[in-house]
Amino acid sequence: MAFQLFPKEDKFFELFDKQAESILKTSLFFKELALSGKFDDVNVLKMHDFEHECDVNTHDIIELLNKSFITPFDREDIHQLAHELDDIVDMLYSITKRINLYKIQEINADLIQFSDYIEQAVTSLAKALRCLRKLKNVRPIIDSCIEVNKLENLGDQLKDAIIGKLLEGNPEPILFIKWKEIFEGTETVLDICEDVANVIESILVKQG
Amino acid sequence: MAFQLFPKEDKFFELFDKQAESILKTSLFFKELALSGKFDDVNVLKMHDFEHECDVNTHDIIELLNKSFITPFDREDIHQLAHELDDIVDMLYSITKRINLYKIQEINADLIQFSDYIEQAVTSLAKALRCLRKLKNVRPIIDSCIEVNKLENLGDQLKDAIIGKLLEGNPEPILFIKWKEIFEGTETVLDICEDVANVIESILVKQG
Amino acid sequence: MAFQLFPKEDKFFELFDKQAESILKTSLFFKELALSGKFDDVNVLKMHDFEHECDVNTHDIIELLNKSFITPFDREDIHQLAHELDDIVDMLYSITKRINLYKIQEINADLIQFSDYIEQAVTSLAKALRCLRKLKNVRPIIDSCIEVNKLENLGDQLKDAIIGKLLEGNPEPILFIKWKEIFEGTETVLDICEDVANVIESILVKQG
Repeated sequence: MAFQLFPKEDKFFELFDKQAESILKTSLFFKELALSGKFDDVNVLKMHDFEHECDVNTHDIIELLNKSFITPFDREDIHQLAHELDDIVDMLYSITKRINLYKIQEINADLIQFSDYIEQAVTSLAKALRCLRKLKNVRPIIDSCIEVNKLENLGDQLKDAIIGKLLEGNPEPILFIKWKEIFEGTETVLDICEDVANVIESILVKQG
Repeated sequence: MAFQLFPKEDKFFELFDKQAESILKTSLFFKELALSGKFDDVNVLKMHDFEHECDVNTHDIIELLNKSFITPFDREDIHQLAHELDDIVDMLYSITKRINLYKIQEINADLIQFSDYIEQAVTSLAKALRCLRKLKNVRPIIDSCIEVNKLENLGDQLKDAIIGKLLEGNPEPILFIKWKEIFEGTETVLDICEDVANVIESILVKQG
Repeated sequence: MAFQLFPKEDKFFELFDKQAESILKTSLFFKELALSGKFDDVNVLKMHDFEHECDVNTHDIIELLNKSFITPFDREDIHQLAHELDDIVDMLYSITKRINLYKIQEINADLIQFSDYIEQAVTSLAKALRCLRKLKNVRPIIDSCIEVNKLENLGDQLKDAIIGKLLEGNPEPILFIKWKEIFEGTETVLDICEDVANVIESILVKQG
């Protein structure tokens, strides 16, 4: 039987990987909805299940944190990481509910583009989290974080371009309010992804 | 003369109880305004007095925290608790000012319903804070926190229902903007109440 | 050669002074834009350069923090101070981009007034930060923080007055949305300045 010095440290990485997987599934489902335009009641409920799954994962991480004396990195970083990962899914659920409430049923190319950026950002975060186990090789972690920063920038530009385009068409005000809110939501998802990347980078610096 | 081992610990509980009482008074006043529709200049000033009273309470808690070596629970939890309790009243004041600015004078049934949820949530938080003194009996604390979570869910559903209803009536855009902002505000109050409940629950876990 | 006991402590003050100077330059540039109404593409790029300069300064402070065992005040206060100072400039950049996107080219007296409040608040913060070196003389620090609180209050009143004025004119909804967003942005800048002042005051209390 092998001797495990810090079995709980491993547990943290396992829980973060599990959470990353749940978030990735959620972002893929959100992309499906964008592609099909089916933000209907049934799919809102499905999105709620994803949101709940991530809540449970977050709860497990915080509970382990509260019970652990030794942690693989700073307690406050684990805390922040757990909560910001949860925020990604909360935001995706909130956007889904809003599109449903606004009875938007068209397929929107810009929303598909945003859902793709989000999926890419979450994929990069999942990779960075997985690599936190081996801090001797920081290259893939840094590359993933840079990728997330790039995607956040792209999202920022896309949102501005969308709002500019909407305004040029002299839009019906209520419709403008609806779409503005939706795309500010999708951009916020990428902002939160960047926040997660920033926490990961600060973990690297402290261990460096 | 009885010997007090940690007199300052008692002081923390006293200050939190005082703050809970001030917030409860504020939420009752907000409900009165909703019931009467009188969000006039005089009542905005009265609400400002409540807001100032809670500011003073928050200041007293933080000052005690900065002066104390021994605290009844984690320093950061006391800090967060104090600031989030303050946020509840800041938000109620901000909504009151906004309704006044928007010259809304009608009595609105949904606003009354929200003010009732808020009063119930604040009552539950006050109870949970009072019970933090006796951590051996966690049941009433947990029940109060669950109650707050329920009310936050109800508020969330109510806000969505209100916005859906507004949209069905093909509303005048400026009026839609006004009411949307007001009800997003009242929902935010319940979100902050839930944040407070989450801090309280995390205190339980750490002491558990 | 003089012996320096805590050379790194000095370094923190130097970096904060540098950051304060960069933010002051940014707020002066924002005021220039308000005065000229030239929120054009070239000036958005210039504002981006300021924003990047402040990002670098923030990064330098956080890096020094992560490398230092001895810090002139609480680690979490340095962290919060650094990030909130950065938020001031992020917000000014975001407002600038928004005015550009909204193709607003008129010179607006209220925007000029706000840009003046912001410049005054940042000047006071710069003074308070400079005086943190000599904590024996707290008077100028406290006075500067009080000044920032006053300016935040003025900004709050100004924003409400502007929105009230806009509504009286029975505005075109899209135009109302644009200006409301811009002035909520400028008020948020002053809110963040007040947050910075609050951190500075809490540093005083802890050292007091």
